[in-house]
Amino acid sequence: MTVPFLIENPTDLYYLTGLQLSAGSYVETPQGPKLVVDGRYTSYVKEGSIPVVASLKEALYGFQKVRFDSSHTSYQRFEKLKSDFPTIEWVAEEGILHQKRALKDAEEIQKITASALLNRQGIAYVESLLKPGIFERELATALEIFWLERGASGLAFETIIAFGSNSAFPHHRASSRPLKEGEIVQLDCGVCLNHYMADMSRVFFFGEVNPELHTIRHIVEKAQRAALSLYKPGATMSALYRAAKQVIDQSGYGDKFPHSLGHGIGLETHEWPLLRDRADTESAICEPGMVLTFEPGIYLPGLGGVRLEEMALLTEKGYKIL
Amino acid sequence: MTVPFLIENPTDLYYLTGLQLSAGSYVETPQGPKLVVDGRYTSYVKEGSIPVVASLKEALYGFQKVRFDSSHTSYQRFEKLKSDFPTIEWVAEEGILHQKRALKDAEEIQKITASALLNRQGIAYVESLLKPGIFERELATALEIFWLERGASGLAFETIIAFGSNSAFPHHRASSRPLKEGEIVQLDCGVCLNHYMADMSRVFFFGEVNPELHTIRHIVEKAQRAALSLYKPGATMSALYRAAKQVIDQSGYGDKFPHSLGHGIGLETHEWPLLRDRADTESAICEPGMVLTFEPGIYLPGLGGVRLEEMALLTEKGYKIL
Repeated sequence: MTVPFLIENPTDLYYLTGLQLSAGSYVETPQGPKLVVDGRYTSYVKEGSIPVVASLKEALYGFQKVRFDSSHTSYQRFEKLKSDFPTIEWVAEEGILHQKRALKDAEEIQKITASALLNRQGIAYVESLLKPGIFERELATALEIFWLERGASGLAFETIIAFGSNSAFPHHRASSRPLKEGEIVQLDCGVCLNHYMADMSRVFFFGEVNPELHTIRHIVEKAQRAALSLYKPGATMSALYRAAKQVIDQSGYGDKFPHSLGHGIGLETHEWPLLRDRADTESAICEPGMVLTFEPGIYLPGLGGVRLEEMALLTEKGYKIL
Repeated sequence: MTVPFLIENPTDLYYLTGLQLSAGSYVETPQGPKLVVDGRYTSYVKEGSIPVVASLKEALYGFQKVRFDSSHTSYQRFEKLKSDFPTIEWVAEEGILHQKRALKDAEEIQKITASALLNRQGIAYVESLLKPGIFERELATALEIFWLERGASGLAFETIIAFGSNSAFPHHRASSRPLKEGEIVQLDCGVCLNHYMADMSRVFFFGEVNPELHTIRHIVEKAQRAALSLYKPGATMSALYRAAKQVIDQSGYGDKFPHSLGHGIGLETHEWPLLRDRADTESAICEPGMVLTFEPGIYLPGLGGVRLEEMALLTEKGYKIL
């Protein structure tokens, strides 16, 4: 008999129930799932298909051992569970739904493809607005409005638009810096459409930029291609990361690539798995149905940085850029 | 000597450092604060005024006992801290900065007042757009664009716009339902401006609505006033809640008010304290500098609901609706 598990984070609750709950408890039991919500949601959850019970006590009744998601459960919540249910053995498990959520079904692929398309349209729109004197912040706002008018429910994350040397900060926030001829424009943006996130990065050269920026763009492109060429069922996340890292290392910019290569994406912008070179990414394997981002970058303080990011779906036949 | 504490959640990091970090560790020590960030932020944090150290190991060096925030630390992170620093005694503390963050300083009050003003303007704008056939979702999008065009960085939360019987769901999401003559319009919306959140709720009667909706609006207004009349330095959160609840109870709708009376607001939409009747809210006391929301509601399934919400600052002299 499988050990029942408890899920309480809102995104997982949406994934499991199709209901938008800011709080609630879902217990998967051998007899099927049970849902517990507070008074704000009691009428709403009747629309769903999951049996609702009155209390967590009722949902957990009879179980000696219950798994909980250690990555989404606060220490405080854990203490409360322990004290409310002292006879239950609480088993910490990291990311109970990580693996399941990483493999998108047909409906999810359709939705994430639609998000990616709207994201591309937004990027083209931003490119069309580039002109001397326009502010980073102005572009970020224009992009958000463009998306909202086309049905987006919001941003996947705060848009990064960085002109010139600002692009050397991987997580720059759009500011009141005006665009000047001869500057690089780094754009990293994501839209949320029908609950599914997009996440892409581009650079534009506005006029003649420093030649080293051309050089690093070329290297970053090569690094991205190297990783994508290994993106096949069975490959480890570490292998993808190392393929990109090696290209950057060999070009002499190894210490200017300070972040991971990418991540899963879906209901959240950053989902499992992480594309990095660590013990846990060594055991994370590419499987058909995954959507991963590939975003190598090189950052040169004072001069600028280049990060290029694509979302790629893995199928039995190979990968597809979304 | 005070016990050092560790803060790692992004909003608290912004509060303490003025830096926007998606991840990082801040250690408050008797010798002053120390900050640890990963490679994505190393150049950025040089702009701040907090001393940066290379690793958490360095920041924690020499301490036998360290407090961590149990409400913002996942169980998984706690396990990692324990295994990385086995000689340290880790002391769980709920909301280390709750109390401090609840008391807004002059600059914060200025910012939150500006957010509240922009929120009011948005509400007036929505009211001006009401017409038969307009969709809930259309209004939500128009409101977001209105705010973005006026400098907002986004929404404090997903806008709730509910027509007619949809308003009986406290957490309804704006849908494609069209507005009809004779319907109630429930609006619960918040803007984020300069990092500070607003949160207000209003109802509009579009034409002649069911008389019971007038009745419950009157009761909800009375409940809100009753709570505000007790909003003075020294009052407990429980007392505020009970004042509102009593009005609703006495009117016979006691079981139709299923949520708390309100909450603190600032860098986050929902901050400590919670206005509810519990052991922990009994010990939470009103103090000058607090900004709380007051949002009683009554919900009648099938017919509709009314929630009215104001943000109120407490000063030595009394409260002020923002």
